[in-house]
Amino acid sequence: MKAIVHVRPRSGVLDPQGQAVAGALKHLGFDEVLEARQGKVIELVLADGDETKARERVEQMCKHLLANTVIEDYQVSIEP
Amino acid sequence: MKAIVHVRPRSGVLDPQGQAVAGALKHLGFDEVLEARQGKVIELVLADGDETKARERVEQMCKHLLANTVIEDYQVSIEP
Repeated sequence: MKAIVHVRPRSGVLDPQGQAVAGALKHLGFDEVLEARQGKVIELVLADGDETKARERVEQMCKHLLANTVIEDYQVSIEP
Repeated sequence: MKAIVHVRPRSGVLDPQGQAVAGALKHLGFDEVLEARQGKVIELVLADGDETKARERVEQMCKHLLANTVIEDYQVSIEP
């Protein structure tokens, strides 16, 4: 089973990485870029088991390690 | 218009960040984690325009800045 976790800065939270990307893109001539935000994506390969249980466990992983929930949002999707 | 860019290590390329995540999760008792790979996701807000043209431009951004195509794969999706 596979789990895909998206972690991104909460809206309203300063995102210096995203700002750097937007600045660099403008500098390279990509003037259509109005804003950029950067997050991370973690792909987990999990031992097979119940999908609902797996989702619960991955949400625990997010809270404990993968995301800083004060400043980041996360989204979990499970693929069989 | 919005563009979402996923950048992840090519399969076969060593991913030390992913290995660190997998190790830390196992250490926390999440023994079902067999493997982890970490990539990044960049959300771009673009000035409105033609979708096909926007996709081409974002692919250029990937080649020039957002991804290191020697060791990373990228995937672009455009949302109106």
